[in-house]
Amino acid sequence: MKALVLERIGELQLRDIDLPTTLGPDDVRIGIHTVGVCGSDVHFYTHGRIGDFVVNAPMVLGHEAAGTVIEVGADVTHLRPGDRVCMEPGIPDPLSRASKMGLYNVDPAVTFWATPPIHGVLTPEVIHPAAFTYRLPDNVSFAEGAMVEPFAVGMQAAKRARIEPGDTAVVIGAGTIGIMTALAALAGGCSRVLISDVSAPKLALAQQYEGITGVNVREVSLREVVSTETEGWGVDIVFECSGAEAAMRDLFRIVRPGGTVVFVGLPPEPVAIDISGAAARECRMETVFRYANVFDRALALISAGKVDLKPLISDTFGFDQSIAAFERAAEGRPEDVKLQILVDQQGEKG
Amino acid sequence: MKALVLERIGELQLRDIDLPTTLGPDDVRIGIHTVGVCGSDVHFYTHGRIGDFVVNAPMVLGHEAAGTVIEVGADVTHLRPGDRVCMEPGIPDPLSRASKMGLYNVDPAVTFWATPPIHGVLTPEVIHPAAFTYRLPDNVSFAEGAMVEPFAVGMQAAKRARIEPGDTAVVIGAGTIGIMTALAALAGGCSRVLISDVSAPKLALAQQYEGITGVNVREVSLREVVSTETEGWGVDIVFECSGAEAAMRDLFRIVRPGGTVVFVGLPPEPVAIDISGAAARECRMETVFRYANVFDRALALISAGKVDLKPLISDTFGFDQSIAAFERAAEGRPEDVKLQILVDQQGEKG
Amino acid sequence: MKALVLERIGELQLRDIDLPTTLGPDDVRIGIHTVGVCGSDVHFYTHGRIGDFVVNAPMVLGHEAAGTVIEVGADVTHLRPGDRVCMEPGIPDPLSRASKMGLYNVDPAVTFWATPPIHGVLTPEVIHPAAFTYRLPDNVSFAEGAMVEPFAVGMQAAKRARIEPGDTAVVIGAGTIGIMTALAALAGGCSRVLISDVSAPKLALAQQYEGITGVNVREVSLREVVSTETEGWGVDIVFECSGAEAAMRDLFRIVRPGGTVVFVGLPPEPVAIDISGAAARECRMETVFRYANVFDRALALISAGKVDLKPLISDTFGFDQSIAAFERAAEGRPEDVKLQILVDQQGEKG
Amino acid sequence: MKALVLERIGELQLRDIDLPTTLGPDDVRIGIHTVGVCGSDVHFYTHGRIGDFVVNAPMVLGHEAAGTVIEVGADVTHLRPGDRVCMEPGIPDPLSRASKMGLYNVDPAVTFWATPPIHGVLTPEVIHPAAFTYRLPDNVSFAEGAMVEPFAVGMQAAKRARIEPGDTAVVIGAGTIGIMTALAALAGGCSRVLISDVSAPKLALAQQYEGITGVNVREVSLREVVSTETEGWGVDIVFECSGAEAAMRDLFRIVRPGGTVVFVGLPPEPVAIDISGAAARECRMETVFRYANVFDRALALISAGKVDLKPLISDTFGFDQSIAAFERAAEGRPEDVKLQILVDQQGEKG
Repeated sequence: MKALVLERIGELQLRDIDLPTTLGPDDVRIGIHTVGVCGSDVHFYTHGRIGDFVVNAPMVLGHEAAGTVIEVGADVTHLRPGDRVCMEPGIPDPLSRASKMGLYNVDPAVTFWATPPIHGVLTPEVIHPAAFTYRLPDNVSFAEGAMVEPFAVGMQAAKRARIEPGDTAVVIGAGTIGIMTALAALAGGCSRVLISDVSAPKLALAQQYEGITGVNVREVSLREVVSTETEGWGVDIVFECSGAEAAMRDLFRIVRPGGTVVFVGLPPEPVAIDISGAAARECRMETVFRYANVFDRALALISAGKVDLKPLISDTFGFDQSIAAFERAAEGRPEDVKLQILVDQQGEKG
Repeated sequence: MKALVLERIGELQLRDIDLPTTLGPDDVRIGIHTVGVCGSDVHFYTHGRIGDFVVNAPMVLGHEAAGTVIEVGADVTHLRPGDRVCMEPGIPDPLSRASKMGLYNVDPAVTFWATPPIHGVLTPEVIHPAAFTYRLPDNVSFAEGAMVEPFAVGMQAAKRARIEPGDTAVVIGAGTIGIMTALAALAGGCSRVLISDVSAPKLALAQQYEGITGVNVREVSLREVVSTETEGWGVDIVFECSGAEAAMRDLFRIVRPGGTVVFVGLPPEPVAIDISGAAARECRMETVFRYANVFDRALALISAGKVDLKPLISDTFGFDQSIAAFERAAEGRPEDVKLQILVDQQGEKG
Repeated sequence: MKALVLERIGELQLRDIDLPTTLGPDDVRIGIHTVGVCGSDVHFYTHGRIGDFVVNAPMVLGHEAAGTVIEVGADVTHLRPGDRVCMEPGIPDPLSRASKMGLYNVDPAVTFWATPPIHGVLTPEVIHPAAFTYRLPDNVSFAEGAMVEPFAVGMQAAKRARIEPGDTAVVIGAGTIGIMTALAALAGGCSRVLISDVSAPKLALAQQYEGITGVNVREVSLREVVSTETEGWGVDIVFECSGAEAAMRDLFRIVRPGGTVVFVGLPPEPVAIDISGAAARECRMETVFRYANVFDRALALISAGKVDLKPLISDTFGFDQSIAAFERAAEGRPEDVKLQILVDQQGEKG
Repeated sequence: MKALVLERIGELQLRDIDLPTTLGPDDVRIGIHTVGVCGSDVHFYTHGRIGDFVVNAPMVLGHEAAGTVIEVGADVTHLRPGDRVCMEPGIPDPLSRASKMGLYNVDPAVTFWATPPIHGVLTPEVIHPAAFTYRLPDNVSFAEGAMVEPFAVGMQAAKRARIEPGDTAVVIGAGTIGIMTALAALAGGCSRVLISDVSAPKLALAQQYEGITGVNVREVSLREVVSTETEGWGVDIVFECSGAEAAMRDLFRIVRPGGTVVFVGLPPEPVAIDISGAAARECRMETVFRYANVFDRALALISAGKVDLKPLISDTFGFDQSIAAFERAAEGRPEDVKLQILVDQQGEKG
């Protein structure tokens, strides 16, 4: 089957490759329609590795996908051929200790699309467990369906924050995940979100949403803005989405006594954290690893109109333009939130 | 001072009455602008009692109020004369065991406006602790400010539900509190709300809000609607706002396994609850008693535009028409969600 | 294979019966050593049904079991032949919506030993998923291992109570589950437990444990005892383990403001619950359905010596005396907490 | 009144000093019996400051105290002269935003005994709010009562950990707070605790308690011990009580997926934390600032015999030997967990 293959660091090819074709009794066969380009896909392309995951053999890229069910395994009951779906790209051992506790995302046995040595889904057809395949509501497009995966990270962050209705929040970093987190926080109960970044274009993209106010930290101090806006009290929740060490310094000065900091961005190395400052306000800190049990909730919010991801799709490329899409993504234009690839160019649009 | 006085069951007078005038160091003096008419005010008027609280002496009515700070006590720092405010009508002992735990609403020592023998605020001026007085954001009107108290009950229900982003909910009962709860649930993170009632006008009022779908249980079975809408799984949260025994029967058939039922409506007598049914889905049940620590959050959501209470103000009466307002409220017209009384008829409108 | 078969209501036989023998890749084959007699086993024997579960065909009884691994499936890594183990008798669909959330106990697809039409384990050998088979620490006997299942119900109750260190508790009902719950509550962080019953022998059995104080409600009022012991405040948690309607009346008079009631006992019909009384103290109510993710924790507490279940084993019968064991259990002697059957009479004792 | 006065860094005097004597309506007057010497008292003595708190004027030391009520204010109802009591040394503004939420420990307005410029209680008589004064159960001695304050820190750590019954825990650091935390964790529901330190005498003191196993990290790797003991899974909770940067490195390698790290020890400077490592296991991190709402719970556990603090009282000094007590404490002998001063040498012993 044709696929976008990362041959080795810096080298992509759209070529035929052997991929699994056996449909197990709990699996579905899916015709891929749209796939989003994720920063991690690009990072494997440009760096050949992320942490311990190294590209040692040709690997198909892509893990943000939507498509149509073509065939269902013998034991599948909740999906049928023709169903429009999106997919959760991590597959755990469902009988593991973590999975039994509902923490399947941190099951050490998880395999994940486009994370070496597992192939991704920039290819016309894939096999996937039905249990991790979610039907799209009629009013959710394939393009939106392919956005559920990155939005799910924001949803997981919002879930772990344990938002109380009307909480105020700061999101540090207005990249893709920062914006996703801000939208999930607003839909998930926050009254308003201050989002900070050094990039004016990114802030402009974030601020198009009602309830999100940008703070350009090249121009003003986030700490002062928060102090003014909250009369010195601090915000209920800080979502740290930049992973930048500089951002860590003031975390416990902008969060309120008894508030929460959620670390969404992942610094590559340990960073200096002011534990005593955190303790002085008795803050809770949460971390986020991908997501678990949020795809259906994400779809419910999108379908209800509480979250609109469409303005974040910056451009769409044909499958035969996949390499161009990755080159564009590698440029890192500040105004590009999400690039998508239309794998099924004959199929129904978006 | 002139006030709307409930002399005894069924008898109201707008007359002069002696009320406290001493301003303590932690108090503020407030000029009342707008007061909402609550079902409990009406119930004292028509029945002379609610449970153990009996009207044995003339009592000023009204506890949903907004106004303007006139004077502040010596130790008050966060409010100033001229501040537009709304007030939390229950005053706890701040050093009680419950208050120290943050549960000041269930402090047995709480006194509450217009709950015998405590006077309410349908009068031009009141003294209140600054700690339970909240400044209105500039874009929140007095009329909305006077709606915060009933909305706070919905906020407390939403808070205790511990909504996860994207939860689905049913609200049983589309009266004032049912609609308030539905709005708080949506603003607090639910993706959508099904609201049930037997009254078409009440359902029509609820359905004007995006995200709320009415279910007329004279025409269809709520249980069947929920089953269809959730593919047999059930909703994450049921808010029981009717207090009607008939509504209790199916609670644990419409909530999902592991879901939550929040009892907001208060049945006057014990009601039959299917504990084994609740256990079969291992449901959690929560109750709500007024509210604690939600006024500022309610104001934040209103100010942010996430909650619009204005369509629920059915009519406004002048202070000199207070008795007419209560007579209208006592009629119980299904299309009346909230009636308000403009105490300060010279003051700035709304 | 020989097994204790419930032929129909009231008729037991120890006879040969065909049972599954195929070992799947994720299964283990276990030689059964000890099996406890549970109230539900006895109820099927004496009444032929529990709720919707009706004995329509011969069924092997027994679901509280410990034994030794004989053989492991191809994919089993954490167990080996010779391992001493106890087993969780409910098997969910691990890919179901409930299981993915960690709520596998409320997965509608669960099958459970000795619940029609599924056979139990009063037989020398069974096949079971390795994921629901737990190794016994060296200092935990088979007899204790066979007590883990009933104790797990108490553990689930203690877990759902969300005990804070030093909480005070009342347990209503000093039957097997009441005592198990009291022990789990104490080991799980409660400072002390008041347990109430009408049976002096049951209370005597409970009171042999440090930290448990019996209250004979034939002689004194539980409500008065609680009021005296807590200076009118109430206890943090009430575990209702009797299922008796009479016990429901005072639940919200003995629990403190903001406290929790856990329903462990299952009334066969809906019972009158004072929702308004619950709301006046803003109580939370929890329910318990079997257990999930507690077997390893139960074993950890037993092994550590924080819970001693041995005094609760009232008598032990040989496998060939199984019917006598059930007849004795059906007598319902108040001093019998747990009767066990030694299936492997040649095996290592206890 | 005579008191132990820290005149300036390094200079103590037992001398007369003017202290407040006015009894407010919500206050009690307490005759001090026993006061423990805390590391922070010693630090003010040896360093003259802790963070921003600088000794600029003579200050009475001591904040771990028990005594007897001598007189009660007009509005005090729950205490009477003659009551034996211990006291919570921090006094918040009960009407502050934090206090209303139950977070009075992080109220910025808190004043705290023996934290400049507030005097401590190494003096025969003090005035204190009744709401922060707790009656000792009959079987709890003054010496134990004076241990409640340091134990309360462990209780707060255990509370914020949200222990589930049977959780396993590691405590890093076997100093006073480490041992207190280990005891609170065990009493609060943990099945067992591994405690690590480099000091053999400290570990010996900790290990005298059933359920606590010492790990001398001079000799063995904590990471390896945890891996062996938990079959590679990790412990449910890590309590970091050392504040040492070296201890931070392996935190997320010894905690299980989905587990919790509680920071109890306070590093003086920001420390390197492996956020990505924490995220890979999706860990939660909690911090602890003193305590709130735990004194009564601590007393309940001590009175019930679930926590025995007496073995931790290393030595007792007379009031006239107070300076000697501080000199001994400043030596930092590893076998000294807690030194106490008997202020009332005529009073009832212990």
